[in-house]
Amino acid sequence: MSANTSEIPVIQSIEWLDDHVRIIDQTCLPDREVHLDLFEVGKIWEAIRTLRVRGAPAIGIITAYGVYLGLKEAPETSFDEFDESREQICNYLALSRPTAVNLQWALDRATRCIHEMKNQPVPEIKTALLELAKTIHREDKAICAAIGKNGQELVPDYARILTHCNTGSLATGQYGTALSIIYHAHLQEKNVHVWVDETRPLLQGSRLTSWELQKSGIDHHIITDSMAGWIMQRQGLDLVVVGTDRVAANGDTANKIGTYSLAVLAKHHKIPFYVAAPLSSIDRSLSSGADIPIEERSAEELRKIGQYPTAPADAPVYNPAFDITPHALITAFITEKGIIRPDFTENIALMMDGEAAG
Amino acid sequence: MSANTSEIPVIQSIEWLDDHVRIIDQTCLPDREVHLDLFEVGKIWEAIRTLRVRGAPAIGIITAYGVYLGLKEAPETSFDEFDESREQICNYLALSRPTAVNLQWALDRATRCIHEMKNQPVPEIKTALLELAKTIHREDKAICAAIGKNGQELVPDYARILTHCNTGSLATGQYGTALSIIYHAHLQEKNVHVWVDETRPLLQGSRLTSWELQKSGIDHHIITDSMAGWIMQRQGLDLVVVGTDRVAANGDTANKIGTYSLAVLAKHHKIPFYVAAPLSSIDRSLSSGADIPIEERSAEELRKIGQYPTAPADAPVYNPAFDITPHALITAFITEKGIIRPDFTENIALMMDGEAAG
Repeated sequence: MSANTSEIPVIQSIEWLDDHVRIIDQTCLPDREVHLDLFEVGKIWEAIRTLRVRGAPAIGIITAYGVYLGLKEAPETSFDEFDESREQICNYLALSRPTAVNLQWALDRATRCIHEMKNQPVPEIKTALLELAKTIHREDKAICAAIGKNGQELVPDYARILTHCNTGSLATGQYGTALSIIYHAHLQEKNVHVWVDETRPLLQGSRLTSWELQKSGIDHHIITDSMAGWIMQRQGLDLVVVGTDRVAANGDTANKIGTYSLAVLAKHHKIPFYVAAPLSSIDRSLSSGADIPIEERSAEELRKIGQYPTAPADAPVYNPAFDITPHALITAFITEKGIIRPDFTENIALMMDGEAAG
Repeated sequence: MSANTSEIPVIQSIEWLDDHVRIIDQTCLPDREVHLDLFEVGKIWEAIRTLRVRGAPAIGIITAYGVYLGLKEAPETSFDEFDESREQICNYLALSRPTAVNLQWALDRATRCIHEMKNQPVPEIKTALLELAKTIHREDKAICAAIGKNGQELVPDYARILTHCNTGSLATGQYGTALSIIYHAHLQEKNVHVWVDETRPLLQGSRLTSWELQKSGIDHHIITDSMAGWIMQRQGLDLVVVGTDRVAANGDTANKIGTYSLAVLAKHHKIPFYVAAPLSSIDRSLSSGADIPIEERSAEELRKIGQYPTAPADAPVYNPAFDITPHALITAFITEKGIIRPDFTENIALMMDGEAAG
């Protein structure tokens, strides 16, 4: 665990530079690498709204910086007045992407911070808000780095790895979740090769993951999602590792559509199937995956790519954004506190209650 | 078997109209339905070359018409002179898509026809060439219709069917192979519902199959290839039916990339997996799928759709166009002569040697 993660040549999608946030504009990728400097909360709002920043942890981080930028010029005459400004800014940011869980989580944390300091001078509260944003950013990086390191015992030298969607530095503070494991394997000179599912319909694999791996010089090939089974059969594979949007108490896992098919294919080919999961993504209030709602997205995502029609203009389309992988198909979870193996219900509870041995 | 297939409102991608061929230009689909009238062999060549006509049987048919159009104005003074013209035209057409098996097959059949008539007047040979093209066209329609009818015993009322790629009227004389089974189920008012894999990278499912089904009023939804497993698990499915490019003597089946994954997923969910196969696609000279070569296509197919970049411009890509499904994952083949069930090696031989009972 002594590896210095700063040696990994990974990009940072969000940076704080003295008085503003610099982001990589994900809407320009992979065509152009555009860095945007955001000095005002309005620009933060727009960046979240238009998906210049995406990925749940990344949204949480930039939201926290947004609260600070939105309040740094607020009147300092009284706490109550400041708290009114706080309410306005939070309500405003909350509307940028109403369904993003980490967005609301960051707003709640900023609000709590402010309320806990109600008896202190407003300028000090402002300073604390910037520190909070930096802390959230730093915590996320640390969680991602820990996931990456903890996964190494599961990654052999010359591992042939398949991954899905984008779970990397673009989606998090840095390193990512599933991709952090790949970055750390690369740092340890394991000579891994990565098969990158393009991840239809929004192509986060081919547009973003391939771009990240290229930046870090990690050997990989993009494939269509439909090639995964054939890769397992013909080329051989040592492991599949994916991220997650939400894990139920029994280990059932919601993730980007296509994950379930990969898990079934991995089982057929006797290939370990791992889920990289920050403990914050485990929702023990849900007893199983049946309780996880599945977002259905616009038919247009399958009817057009850019201006190019990929289907008849009015073709009927079914477009669930996520699927649920039953826990029985999952070999292990890789978290910032360590690896969780079956029985998942029992071992998730042990890990989260802090009673896990070692 | 008394159903009149002419009642099925399916399109015809190739038609002969007195003195010329009319095609649906597949390069304009699904955006616009453009019918092209081709009066000269040069236009036929261009239509094959630029994929205005695609699908092995369809290429065979239009090639036969092309030979007639190329020779109908040829000098009639001597057979030898005519045969020289024949050689020129055949060599010319052969270069339109050098690897298309059905193209060469049609040229060989036309050449044989001409040589068998060498003692007859050239005008009569020309008439025979047009008749040959019409025969090839008619034979293909009959084979497709028979496959469609023979498949009906496997399709229950209200069947929920999943298919891959385009195996319909656009790829054949009419009806198609796997899609013919769906057309005939619709004709018999079985109220089927079809899940259409979009079929990356070239999107033949969403661009072409959805367009065909819409034309015929058949209930369907387009999905990404990665959704197939989730459909099987969450929505339920009665059968998967696909086409094939080549079947080995033991039943191992080469087909569009993604077919193998579907077969594994179907097995996991205990869903019958059928292959619609004209007997001409069964190559008994190959003992198993290991002998079938897999075409690897251009990386550009995964890097761009139209002008839209779907990956970094120089991203490494692996792009096999086909995969091979082991016979053990196949429930049955549906051919123009009937259904072939395991043991495939034995029953394919019986069917093709004409010794199959009933």
